[in-house]
Amino acid sequence: MNAPVTVSILGLGEMGRALAAALLGAGHTVTVWNRTPGRAERLIEDGAIEAPSAGVAIDASELVVVCLFDHDSVHETLDPIVDRLHGRVLVNLTTTSPEQARELGLWARAGGIAALDGGIMAVPSMIGGPGSEILYSGDQSSFERYRNVLDRWGTSSYLGADPGLASLYDIALLSGMYVMFAGYMQGAALVATAGVSATAFAERSAAWLSAMTGELAGYGRVIDGGDYTVAGQQSLDFSDLSKMLEAADEAGVGAVPLAMVQSLIERQRGVGLGAEGFARIFESVRHTVG
Amino acid sequence: MNAPVTVSILGLGEMGRALAAALLGAGHTVTVWNRTPGRAERLIEDGAIEAPSAGVAIDASELVVVCLFDHDSVHETLDPIVDRLHGRVLVNLTTTSPEQARELGLWARAGGIAALDGGIMAVPSMIGGPGSEILYSGDQSSFERYRNVLDRWGTSSYLGADPGLASLYDIALLSGMYVMFAGYMQGAALVATAGVSATAFAERSAAWLSAMTGELAGYGRVIDGGDYTVAGQQSLDFSDLSKMLEAADEAGVGAVPLAMVQSLIERQRGVGLGAEGFARIFESVRHTVG
Repeated sequence: MNAPVTVSILGLGEMGRALAAALLGAGHTVTVWNRTPGRAERLIEDGAIEAPSAGVAIDASELVVVCLFDHDSVHETLDPIVDRLHGRVLVNLTTTSPEQARELGLWARAGGIAALDGGIMAVPSMIGGPGSEILYSGDQSSFERYRNVLDRWGTSSYLGADPGLASLYDIALLSGMYVMFAGYMQGAALVATAGVSATAFAERSAAWLSAMTGELAGYGRVIDGGDYTVAGQQSLDFSDLSKMLEAADEAGVGAVPLAMVQSLIERQRGVGLGAEGFARIFESVRHTVG
Repeated sequence: MNAPVTVSILGLGEMGRALAAALLGAGHTVTVWNRTPGRAERLIEDGAIEAPSAGVAIDASELVVVCLFDHDSVHETLDPIVDRLHGRVLVNLTTTSPEQARELGLWARAGGIAALDGGIMAVPSMIGGPGSEILYSGDQSSFERYRNVLDRWGTSSYLGADPGLASLYDIALLSGMYVMFAGYMQGAALVATAGVSATAFAERSAAWLSAMTGELAGYGRVIDGGDYTVAGQQSLDFSDLSKMLEAADEAGVGAVPLAMVQSLIERQRGVGLGAEGFARIFESVRHTVG
């Protein structure tokens, strides 16, 4: 058991409330504030203190967590009271872009505020439970100092001093997830043409795709090595998806996700690199601003 | 230990050789044939019998496995000797489309041949080892009768009587895999802009994407239920990826995979269905022939 700390949570949307509730459960002194009142009732019952203003909330605690609507809301809320943050630790869990997180990092440094930016890899109902992870970047000593507090929300991972890293990883991981979901939909649409349920296909897909994540480390090594001709790879020519696209067409089903991959493959084959490894589609992805 | 059977393997490409080797290791009587000779030497050392023609190979065995270049090669090889297959069991492991598998199923039925069509979810080096799976469809009694033989190659799954099912599942699962790989590349390209290695991102992605496959069952239930308004879903409006696309643009990195998902989302939002659940992108996928 670690010593309780004073924490203020600014922003009581669904996520802010979940963050506050998890800290109350751990015995910390939690002060909460929301621009529009009425969101704190349940938290107050559980021991939270409601502050009448963001400034009062900041004064109450050594650790200030903001979880607001967007980057602009963060500045609107904090700019008028930046002096009161001086010497405290700010953890920004508002969803922002990497560039916005970097901008806030510079703003915090100018104000003498130690700051962390976080990317929450969970939905509110997962906070404090298994599978919840929050990525952090920015001031490492603040991360280490308050790690036991942060760990109440889920697994805490520190990625580096660049304040944009957490947001960048967040976007990168979510991108992979959404694209994977589209891949499942592509498969489900194909098997549906033979009357196979999406549920039955989901079970098989989950096992298959999980197993296939084992290939990612190999792609990573090839990409980092920078040589797409190393032995043991499946070539782009061999990865030609045109027969699969024809099968989708024959089945009368759309193939936007699959055609997307084929376009990445074709871009490399089109410049004569078809004998190189599949990992080369990394170059197709990064060099075309889509 | 089950009784050894007589098995002939037609086609000694890398996969055919792996299939034959696995059966030799299990004590079966294995006859092999390849259009161009010289591929069987290692197998003969391990106890295989090389047949001088496809017809002789068929005569030698109760179970005939074909693993040839493509669907046309199967007909070129088997059509002239279809009578000799009568009463035997044919397992076609040649990569074909669902429609081609169905055509071969009708051809086999007309010739009095019990037939299975298989989709190999493994590379040759995996055959007979952990992680290898082969999907089958077609004649169920043949599958059950020879299951112990088939199981030497990996996990054997029977999907149904429609001979096209194994190929369809194969294409569907591979589609999901290739699209997932493109999603990883998208993420790796994003984090690379902050100097993060593709290898480091692969490790985090593998864990994250594996965990997120847990969401597929829920999507399957919504799709099968046919009501994309059921409670507890993330809406398409909430899934708007435009901020992620802006972040990619700001980072100067391409976003073809992510933009593909956004196009599926936008198609539904564009017709006023943005309040419905994310699973609705299934309709975007299947209703546009890409």
